[in-house]
Amino acid sequence: MTVQQILEGVSSGAISVERAEDMLQQNRFEDMGYAKLDMDRRKRTGFAEVVFCSGKAEDYLLHIFERLYRENGEVLGTRASVEQYHFLSGKLPDLQYDAVSHILKMERGDKEHRGSIAVCTAGTADIPVAEEAAQTAEFFGTRVERIYDVGVSGLHRLLSRLEEVEAANCVVAVAGMEGALASVIGGLVSRPVIAVPTSVGYGASFGGISALLTMLNSCANGIAVVNIDNGYGAGYMATQINRLAIGAEVPEV
Amino acid sequence: MTVQQILEGVSSGAISVERAEDMLQQNRFEDMGYAKLDMDRRKRTGFAEVVFCSGKAEDYLLHIFERLYRENGEVLGTRASVEQYHFLSGKLPDLQYDAVSHILKMERGDKEHRGSIAVCTAGTADIPVAEEAAQTAEFFGTRVERIYDVGVSGLHRLLSRLEEVEAANCVVAVAGMEGALASVIGGLVSRPVIAVPTSVGYGASFGGISALLTMLNSCANGIAVVNIDNGYGAGYMATQINRLAIGAEVPEV
Amino acid sequence: MTVQQILEGVSSGAISVERAEDMLQQNRFEDMGYAKLDMDRRKRTGFAEVVFCSGKAEDYLLHIFERLYRENGEVLGTRASVEQYHFLSGKLPDLQYDAVSHILKMERGDKEHRGSIAVCTAGTADIPVAEEAAQTAEFFGTRVERIYDVGVSGLHRLLSRLEEVEAANCVVAVAGMEGALASVIGGLVSRPVIAVPTSVGYGASFGGISALLTMLNSCANGIAVVNIDNGYGAGYMATQINRLAIGAEVPEV
Amino acid sequence: MTVQQILEGVSSGAISVERAEDMLQQNRFEDMGYAKLDMDRRKRTGFAEVVFCSGKAEDYLLHIFERLYRENGEVLGTRASVEQYHFLSGKLPDLQYDAVSHILKMERGDKEHRGSIAVCTAGTADIPVAEEAAQTAEFFGTRVERIYDVGVSGLHRLLSRLEEVEAANCVVAVAGMEGALASVIGGLVSRPVIAVPTSVGYGASFGGISALLTMLNSCANGIAVVNIDNGYGAGYMATQINRLAIGAEVPEV
Amino acid sequence: MTVQQILEGVSSGAISVERAEDMLQQNRFEDMGYAKLDMDRRKRTGFAEVVFCSGKAEDYLLHIFERLYRENGEVLGTRASVEQYHFLSGKLPDLQYDAVSHILKMERGDKEHRGSIAVCTAGTADIPVAEEAAQTAEFFGTRVERIYDVGVSGLHRLLSRLEEVEAANCVVAVAGMEGALASVIGGLVSRPVIAVPTSVGYGASFGGISALLTMLNSCANGIAVVNIDNGYGAGYMATQINRLAIGAEVPEV
Amino acid sequence: MTVQQILEGVSSGAISVERAEDMLQQNRFEDMGYAKLDMDRRKRTGFAEVVFCSGKAEDYLLHIFERLYRENGEVLGTRASVEQYHFLSGKLPDLQYDAVSHILKMERGDKEHRGSIAVCTAGTADIPVAEEAAQTAEFFGTRVERIYDVGVSGLHRLLSRLEEVEAANCVVAVAGMEGALASVIGGLVSRPVIAVPTSVGYGASFGGISALLTMLNSCANGIAVVNIDNGYGAGYMATQINRLAIGAEVPEV
Amino acid sequence: MTVQQILEGVSSGAISVERAEDMLQQNRFEDMGYAKLDMDRRKRTGFAEVVFCSGKAEDYLLHIFERLYRENGEVLGTRASVEQYHFLSGKLPDLQYDAVSHILKMERGDKEHRGSIAVCTAGTADIPVAEEAAQTAEFFGTRVERIYDVGVSGLHRLLSRLEEVEAANCVVAVAGMEGALASVIGGLVSRPVIAVPTSVGYGASFGGISALLTMLNSCANGIAVVNIDNGYGAGYMATQINRLAIGAEVPEV
Amino acid sequence: MTVQQILEGVSSGAISVERAEDMLQQNRFEDMGYAKLDMDRRKRTGFAEVVFCSGKAEDYLLHIFERLYRENGEVLGTRASVEQYHFLSGKLPDLQYDAVSHILKMERGDKEHRGSIAVCTAGTADIPVAEEAAQTAEFFGTRVERIYDVGVSGLHRLLSRLEEVEAANCVVAVAGMEGALASVIGGLVSRPVIAVPTSVGYGASFGGISALLTMLNSCANGIAVVNIDNGYGAGYMATQINRLAIGAEVPEV
Repeated sequence: MTVQQILEGVSSGAISVERAEDMLQQNRFEDMGYAKLDMDRRKRTGFAEVVFCSGKAEDYLLHIFERLYRENGEVLGTRASVEQYHFLSGKLPDLQYDAVSHILKMERGDKEHRGSIAVCTAGTADIPVAEEAAQTAEFFGTRVERIYDVGVSGLHRLLSRLEEVEAANCVVAVAGMEGALASVIGGLVSRPVIAVPTSVGYGASFGGISALLTMLNSCANGIAVVNIDNGYGAGYMATQINRLAIGAEVPEV
Repeated sequence: MTVQQILEGVSSGAISVERAEDMLQQNRFEDMGYAKLDMDRRKRTGFAEVVFCSGKAEDYLLHIFERLYRENGEVLGTRASVEQYHFLSGKLPDLQYDAVSHILKMERGDKEHRGSIAVCTAGTADIPVAEEAAQTAEFFGTRVERIYDVGVSGLHRLLSRLEEVEAANCVVAVAGMEGALASVIGGLVSRPVIAVPTSVGYGASFGGISALLTMLNSCANGIAVVNIDNGYGAGYMATQINRLAIGAEVPEV
Repeated sequence: MTVQQILEGVSSGAISVERAEDMLQQNRFEDMGYAKLDMDRRKRTGFAEVVFCSGKAEDYLLHIFERLYRENGEVLGTRASVEQYHFLSGKLPDLQYDAVSHILKMERGDKEHRGSIAVCTAGTADIPVAEEAAQTAEFFGTRVERIYDVGVSGLHRLLSRLEEVEAANCVVAVAGMEGALASVIGGLVSRPVIAVPTSVGYGASFGGISALLTMLNSCANGIAVVNIDNGYGAGYMATQINRLAIGAEVPEV
Repeated sequence: MTVQQILEGVSSGAISVERAEDMLQQNRFEDMGYAKLDMDRRKRTGFAEVVFCSGKAEDYLLHIFERLYRENGEVLGTRASVEQYHFLSGKLPDLQYDAVSHILKMERGDKEHRGSIAVCTAGTADIPVAEEAAQTAEFFGTRVERIYDVGVSGLHRLLSRLEEVEAANCVVAVAGMEGALASVIGGLVSRPVIAVPTSVGYGASFGGISALLTMLNSCANGIAVVNIDNGYGAGYMATQINRLAIGAEVPEV
Repeated sequence: MTVQQILEGVSSGAISVERAEDMLQQNRFEDMGYAKLDMDRRKRTGFAEVVFCSGKAEDYLLHIFERLYRENGEVLGTRASVEQYHFLSGKLPDLQYDAVSHILKMERGDKEHRGSIAVCTAGTADIPVAEEAAQTAEFFGTRVERIYDVGVSGLHRLLSRLEEVEAANCVVAVAGMEGALASVIGGLVSRPVIAVPTSVGYGASFGGISALLTMLNSCANGIAVVNIDNGYGAGYMATQINRLAIGAEVPEV
Repeated sequence: MTVQQILEGVSSGAISVERAEDMLQQNRFEDMGYAKLDMDRRKRTGFAEVVFCSGKAEDYLLHIFERLYRENGEVLGTRASVEQYHFLSGKLPDLQYDAVSHILKMERGDKEHRGSIAVCTAGTADIPVAEEAAQTAEFFGTRVERIYDVGVSGLHRLLSRLEEVEAANCVVAVAGMEGALASVIGGLVSRPVIAVPTSVGYGASFGGISALLTMLNSCANGIAVVNIDNGYGAGYMATQINRLAIGAEVPEV
Repeated sequence: MTVQQILEGVSSGAISVERAEDMLQQNRFEDMGYAKLDMDRRKRTGFAEVVFCSGKAEDYLLHIFERLYRENGEVLGTRASVEQYHFLSGKLPDLQYDAVSHILKMERGDKEHRGSIAVCTAGTADIPVAEEAAQTAEFFGTRVERIYDVGVSGLHRLLSRLEEVEAANCVVAVAGMEGALASVIGGLVSRPVIAVPTSVGYGASFGGISALLTMLNSCANGIAVVNIDNGYGAGYMATQINRLAIGAEVPEV
Repeated sequence: MTVQQILEGVSSGAISVERAEDMLQQNRFEDMGYAKLDMDRRKRTGFAEVVFCSGKAEDYLLHIFERLYRENGEVLGTRASVEQYHFLSGKLPDLQYDAVSHILKMERGDKEHRGSIAVCTAGTADIPVAEEAAQTAEFFGTRVERIYDVGVSGLHRLLSRLEEVEAANCVVAVAGMEGALASVIGGLVSRPVIAVPTSVGYGASFGGISALLTMLNSCANGIAVVNIDNGYGAGYMATQINRLAIGAEVPEV
């Protein structure tokens, strides 16, 4: 409906002032003073708001989790510390914490995982970032294949799992140091590859810059890159792509 | 078929040595001495090999175009100079050159464009990169909506076209200078956004680094980034996503 | 007026649908295909749209100048080349070009310059950037005091002009190389200082990075920084401040 | 009065040697050995000297606070640690410490806040820097509107507060990560925007460089930038601009 | 043997399916879930897999050491912490830890050291990195000459040991700060020099970048560079070169 | 012979003063005013001095070529322009210029090429750097296997040539853009790999920095890196390693 | 004389108003509009103002040379182009231009060169910068010893000239690429070394950054660094040091 | 004496073999295994070896102090921790530690301080670096004038001490943040200025890079720069210059 149509509806009485106001101001949010929770995000983007826990005061975190849980029946938090988990654990029902991915969540029990994405890592040190990606995708209903420690310095390890990688709707390639994994995968598969540089490495890896540049400059096609260590962002976008591939509607609340 | 199964077929005589050799060495390429053309790329990835023309000697370019045209019936070249176009134009049939996108191609006439992606730019100076993305996607059969000059310093321009952006299976956001367009779009739509930083700008834009960092650090979700000025890469990946969304098989040769 | 009030006006008939549509969609722009001209910018921000000429095709530039001139009766263009000037000069009335500042404009003759800003440079090589600032400010009705070549390696030159600097509502400090001018001025005056790093220098000046960092790290107060060589931006903001100081309304069209 | 006039006054006896000495050497400071307190700063710039507490030895800090309090009747300190607060708290009257902004101060009780500036943040993590800006401005007599958590990934949050932003004489835009808030605000308002990049973020945010570059390269007009996390500097300059807007004289001691 | 020959062998019955499978899939690895140990590395590269201990969980480390020890009869680990050593020390036989090089190993007692490499350092602070290089080379059977604290600011120290440096098959030059040692050695000897920049230094040494750039830009010939602080990599490559020089076969298991 | 032994020989008359002077001052060079040619380099390092032609005045270049030719009977020059070649071509006998590698040389006709190194490139654009490496190595008597356009985005191309790569005493891996070729080769072969980053690429390849960092951070072993585009340095060091492998003495003059 | 004393002199009539004004405002400069020539620089610093010619308009350059020549009887200009020389050559008497150093000057004929500094370069490509240093020093009356092409990759070349280096009051060490020359000299001599990094090099020399960092991080003592390619600055400071060493008064005009 | 003359002396018997050996191998050092102490440094450079304590093991430090004390009768150590001081304090006579400069020393009691240098700082936070410079210079016999907290944001503080700055033979200018102090001093005095950037600052000061670049790019003359926080290096070079100015011989041991 265009603005003109809405206004004509108001003018003719077909649409009430309240309803028109709602239609014109589409996005609700809850102003908690220190934060504005985006309550229409699920409707607008197909994903409920996710909490970036790192550095948030514990009281604020509790209130945000409570409020989002009331709205959505589940909450996903990323980059939570074990101290934050301990603070919240008695106060919220069914809170789960994963020490590898640092994901803190309250999740509905009956979740179906559909479609398929593959999450690959170059080494074992990249697994925490990969798990953030994998568990984010799973929270949003995606089926995830984990294929870890298949870096390019031992190509046969990757080649032995190639079939599973090729079967995925989207591949998340997680690598630090020289970050060449994404290029090699990009040359082998027909699906989009989301590359996640990690801060794993030392010296001239410069906290992930080396892997980031490698991935941006890949001569393979079908690769795009997210921020260093941003497993969450990769899991989110892989879910978007997987949903498109399986024809999933944005899930109803 | 696993290696074991192939070998058992050979052992039993069910599979000839030649056929088995073919199955084991799946990827053909043509060794032209100075280059190795990847003839099975279309089968493997769903996209025929594309020619990065920049800096290639004219003779080589001619041979590569001829050879790929023989194989695929069409050829896409990117970053071609007008000099390269003039050299090739008499020697190849139906060669087309676009001076804005620097795309040089021979394309089948009967191409259907399916699905939908949106290609947006922040300013007019970003259009060459956007056209590289759009024309690449179109070459590979994707329908493209162009939405140009909708940068964040005049938000109403973007908001007036929001419906078209929201309707796309994938959005390509092209921006130089501060590169904030991708974040704003990412906050408004439910589909994946491929962000393309451009080298448009001066001073502290550092040839696109500013836009690149902005896009990598976006606090919006569902955004991944390609190299500075890499319109081709964005158009390619958007096509992959669009194909998944419309359930397109990898096109037959 | 809030959205609710507008809607109630529509509902009661006090406001027509057209007028309400206008009120709700405040910002007009003109879509020229390759560009979207922001026609309400003067109403919204107090400044008509300015044309960044660098790299714009000559035909486009002509149309943009014509359209903006029709709307506003004058046009300001920055970073214009002498070639662009020659192309446009026969086709537009009263076009003026300044080879130092690279400003290309059509300006109303009867302009009053009010209030006062000071534009200072460290050296003579910084003058082109300073002139872009000064002439931008003058175009928008500001009186400008030019104080050039007063860099910190010869402090007495600045001190001899201190009274004029102190009298300004806002000081624009333009400097390349080590860029220390802004700090020294910041320690001497009570008004805001807009620092403009320039790309003047060689070696470790890194195209203006040295001056930029100096200005950002100033231990003097009341200093903010614009992009390297961005005289236009400084002149614009100085005008905003000067207008506040003299109580100027946003000028009527 | 020029030097010549002063000297002629001395020569004629109209001005005493002492008074002339005072007039020629305008700036008093107090040499405390390890520091030189700038006692005439209020007269010269309209702001009393502010103490950057970070890293200062506790004894020195005590003496500096005592000396400035004796001079001005109040003292503002920034970047104070809670340990510094505890050391000073018994020894100075009416000392106040804010753990969010790290501001430590002794303030006159009867302060009027005039004019208006708006301090906006993109996220909740940017609030400490925003509070440094807001409380600095308030200390110097400015009325401050706080508008927090209105980042560009949820535009409707900002648009819902737009009227308050537009009403301010100056806007301080505080943002980390991709830092796009300043550009969006700059495109919407007619007043100067002071952009404060923060070190909030991870990976390729590089401790605030990403936000800093975004703000420097903004394609919106009327934006200038201060150092990363420099809330104090933004609050100071916003106060200068606000004073100009309301025609405030430099306050008498 | 080519693929064709293997297949013909299978077809004719001369090669069994199992043996052919083995020949086609040359590389075995052991999938431990979180890691894939490369069991054929010794056969393929002449070096058994080495464990990068830094950051590995203690349980994982124990299992990896056990598994590799079972395979190879000895294990080399680098960048081990003293805590990791204490955890493993009761659980593995003959474990040795060197607190300077952070090497943790189980080594066969009867090892012969052959050929010769020289490991030189500019200062005493570079010794930990040099020892990582030296002990890695010794673990793999190389004889090592240590020549420490011979930096270019006191040339006579290096010149007094020149004969030993010249006698080596390969020189490892370890230096932080300005890193000029490699250039000086490169100008004096006929053998390849592997340069190792270290993170020793402060200020503009930027954690080893200064030394890294010096070594990459050396105007002497025969120098190649490894990552900052990568003593292991230098010791490994020096061993490869030394083995070539003494005509050593890849050692049998 | 030690200094003491030489002096005792002088004292006893067994060694003449002249001969002793010669022994103590081992290195002759020819001072041409603007340059000091290193005449004993071949004796000291096994390689005659090579001329870096780029930027050298034509007259100087002529004299340097003449002088070195007189000494060694052949001369190798790198980075020569075609203009330099044209200037010298009439004036020096048997001068050869290769427009791809920019090598300018006078070479003895009867040269034997011994041992074996492999020079690999990721793409066709890396060939000029690879040829500088290959032709340098050949000039110094090394047999070179060229394996071009085998980048990691099409792994099968490299795998099809693996046997030849494995047979070399040393591998030179030349790659721009993401530079992952060296890592993949390093994981497959037992011989040292010299990695040469090239400036091929655009955007975030930053003139070769991306490839350089990739190579420095390789998780494969046995890789060391030379400067960006430094094919000469790689060919030189590969020759040193090849000579060690084949037990070659430093060639007599 | 203190301000108080001057004022008392005025009060008592012992000092005229004019003379007192002169004493209080010590520094004269000539305001040419576009530039302010510092006429008292020779009195204040012992050096007349030097003209940085690069980028100056030819007319301005002519007037500046004329004015300074009238004041000082000679003029030194640096970084002059040959075009600037041709423009000025007919218009100014006894103008000399050196195409290597790009120094353009009018110099008194009877100049004595006193004391001694040594100017050393690593290679021949560093000579233009070295000559700028040497000729600047000579213009200001310093005796200069040139010692060129003595880089650290052939140490014996430097050692053969060591006596001359040791005899100088100050050493200027000019080097690009890895820039190690300053460290080696710093370890050998007792006098201060001024290090000049040059932009000579390619790849990871990054336009002189590599040499700059090497020199800043030198582990030798007595080294300070000037900007990349800043031969003038080094020659100036070496002259200051040489004057101190020989007890030279600031020369009279 | 030349090598030839020494050899002729040996030949004729005028010089013994031992003495000649000594003359030819001029530099003694003591090889302590982990370190090589440079015993002839005082003779060669006029300064005894100084100990960089940071990171040195306590046992090593003790032995090095003992050995140097035995040789020179005093020892200077820089960057010592208070823990190192406590470890050594009982074991060495007359050990002194300064907690501000982190200098640890044993010093002869009867030292005369001659000539004059000025050490200036921009702020109080720069004092630790300044004291390292000042106390180093004093240890080597230089008289030091301390002029602290005279940064450019309050110029009158510096101007009030100008006479003392002008009287020095050399000025050390210590500044962090924007580092403009060196430029201002360089424009005011005739003596060489050694600029020391400090890591004082935050945000875009990048640990001293901002101040470093400012100082390298100074448009004032007579300025050279040492490493970030390198007070020692500045004090050392200032002493060299001061010795030249007062005609001091290198002090006898």
